[in-house]
Amino acid sequence: MNEVEVKVCPIEALREFCTRVLIYFGVPKDDARQAAEVLATADLRGIDSHGVARLHTYFDMLREGRINPKPEVKVVRSTLSTATVDGDNGLGLVVGPQANRIAMDMAEKSGSGWVSVRNTNHFGIAGYYVLKALERDLIGWAMTNSTKLVAPLWGAERMLGTNPIAIAFPGKEEPAIVIDMASCAAAYGKIEMARRRGEAIPDGWVIDSQGRESTNPDDMVAGGALLPLGSTRERGGHKGYALAIMVDMLSSVLSGANWGPFAPPFALRQEIPKRSVGKGIGHFFGAMRIDGFIDGDSFKNQVDDYIRVFRGTKPAPGTNGPLIPGDPEREAEQIRRKNGVPVILPVVEELRDISEKTGIPFE
Amino acid sequence: MNEVEVKVCPIEALREFCTRVLIYFGVPKDDARQAAEVLATADLRGIDSHGVARLHTYFDMLREGRINPKPEVKVVRSTLSTATVDGDNGLGLVVGPQANRIAMDMAEKSGSGWVSVRNTNHFGIAGYYVLKALERDLIGWAMTNSTKLVAPLWGAERMLGTNPIAIAFPGKEEPAIVIDMASCAAAYGKIEMARRRGEAIPDGWVIDSQGRESTNPDDMVAGGALLPLGSTRERGGHKGYALAIMVDMLSSVLSGANWGPFAPPFALRQEIPKRSVGKGIGHFFGAMRIDGFIDGDSFKNQVDDYIRVFRGTKPAPGTNGPLIPGDPEREAEQIRRKNGVPVILPVVEELRDISEKTGIPFE
Repeated sequence: MNEVEVKVCPIEALREFCTRVLIYFGVPKDDARQAAEVLATADLRGIDSHGVARLHTYFDMLREGRINPKPEVKVVRSTLSTATVDGDNGLGLVVGPQANRIAMDMAEKSGSGWVSVRNTNHFGIAGYYVLKALERDLIGWAMTNSTKLVAPLWGAERMLGTNPIAIAFPGKEEPAIVIDMASCAAAYGKIEMARRRGEAIPDGWVIDSQGRESTNPDDMVAGGALLPLGSTRERGGHKGYALAIMVDMLSSVLSGANWGPFAPPFALRQEIPKRSVGKGIGHFFGAMRIDGFIDGDSFKNQVDDYIRVFRGTKPAPGTNGPLIPGDPEREAEQIRRKNGVPVILPVVEELRDISEKTGIPFE
Repeated sequence: MNEVEVKVCPIEALREFCTRVLIYFGVPKDDARQAAEVLATADLRGIDSHGVARLHTYFDMLREGRINPKPEVKVVRSTLSTATVDGDNGLGLVVGPQANRIAMDMAEKSGSGWVSVRNTNHFGIAGYYVLKALERDLIGWAMTNSTKLVAPLWGAERMLGTNPIAIAFPGKEEPAIVIDMASCAAAYGKIEMARRRGEAIPDGWVIDSQGRESTNPDDMVAGGALLPLGSTRERGGHKGYALAIMVDMLSSVLSGANWGPFAPPFALRQEIPKRSVGKGIGHFFGAMRIDGFIDGDSFKNQVDDYIRVFRGTKPAPGTNGPLIPGDPEREAEQIRRKNGVPVILPVVEELRDISEKTGIPFE
């Protein structure tokens, strides 16, 4: 991010601003605080694309009445360890945490809990939800589908979202292993960055609108698509494509949400799909009690051992050796809690625009 | 496979031979039939590396007393929807199906069932288990860890198995979506094939013993390692690495089996790790009732629709468009059920060797 100018904002200021903006649109105070917490977690952990950078989109969607600020979140079907939740077209940042709590409550009672959610909207970073599970000493899972951006392997058009998968495992003295990964090869944000700089992108990231591999970031914007994790058939692109389908099935087909190319867009400028096959987008949450399988302390000791063994791997040339999933985000959080969050100027301008339109001070 | 000579064997002959060989080593008749069914499923579905091609290894392990032919499989801990199973060092082909049934039984009672298994051995193809779940109208999951073969991203040595993930979703008129994928970029068998032919392999598949990327298949054999799905940092290799850790955690850390580089080898020629951190290798099974989330018929109708929509994707140049996960295996099965299974001559020789040593006829 060194090449773009930034304004460094204390996390508390960002959180407060987000909370007040959401309250302005009629979101109840506790829900607004909850939503702002999810956004702040992204900003703290260095997932800049999913924090305050998205506030303007939430703002647009609420202003246009496309998101319900006061949803009545309902369990529409359940067993001892499974449930389907209808999010009443609320903010994903509010519906997601509620559904995740339902999964965790079930896990505490029945050993595990699995919740598929329909009629919801973008829920922020998947990692947030599995961090919440760690606070209750559970192994948490989180997935969501999203607006189409990714081509199936051998397809020439956008059919799937970046459909992330998150799961976390607690250590005892070592920090938790926190996995939070999109099922595509590269994040859209990286292509945007290359485009701003006028640079080519590596092959394996995108195809153009005709389905040909491309290293020109403009081709992505001009109707191209992201490639799934693995990129090509030779390198396992069918596997990333399969993971994206898995997330779509669990989040959206199982709940009755819109799947595949029919997931509604998250920005006003994006076209609304002509067909609707369900309600809103979908999430999937899971929670498992560790002591439903093994003594909790033994498990955490083994996780510590695991982390130390993997940190001791012989390093590949030119590297310091393998990271543990969650390392970069945890390090970002340590720095940003102390020094503040660097917000790039285009996002600062968006926040100032919201400030002007709502009268809520930002500075 | 056109370049190597094959003997075409009816599946029934292969299944019968495997069953009799296992009985020869004291495996109870029903268990032997069960194990042979798992192997036959691999051969039918075109996963040649996991079918009769592995019989000689099972033969070696049983002959050396390294696998218990009559395991007492026990649930050592459970809740309403979770359990840990100790496989008593039995054949994974016997322990796996039993543990999978426990997960499915729990799902029928509690909505879902999740079973982590320790003290077990290689369980064949992960896909077998999720196909069994389909027979009971459940969404099945299966994972296993295995002997080290894969480097973590930025590592220069083998630390993880090829740790596969399988999950399946039933259609109504359309065949099920069956996902069964290793978490590495390319299968070891492909490297073996290239080596036999004296050909280079694509970059992104392996590193040499110093951790450098290589396109020489000999480098893999001479102490190199497979790369995780995604291959490099740029293309998302950290994601494949994270998936391999997830499988290892759920299968082995959660059950108390050997994880990471300590997973015991599956062949006599491979070195036994100096350290043991648990018992045997580990599996993880899950099963979920569809009607624990949504009406079963609605779900299956949506899956049919999903499949048709994805088959209708605009094809990338030079392809017939995207496949649905499970297509290649289902097509192989149709052909092989009718015409028999092409077994390559080196495997035929192994089977003849077993035949000679046991007196069980093979032809």
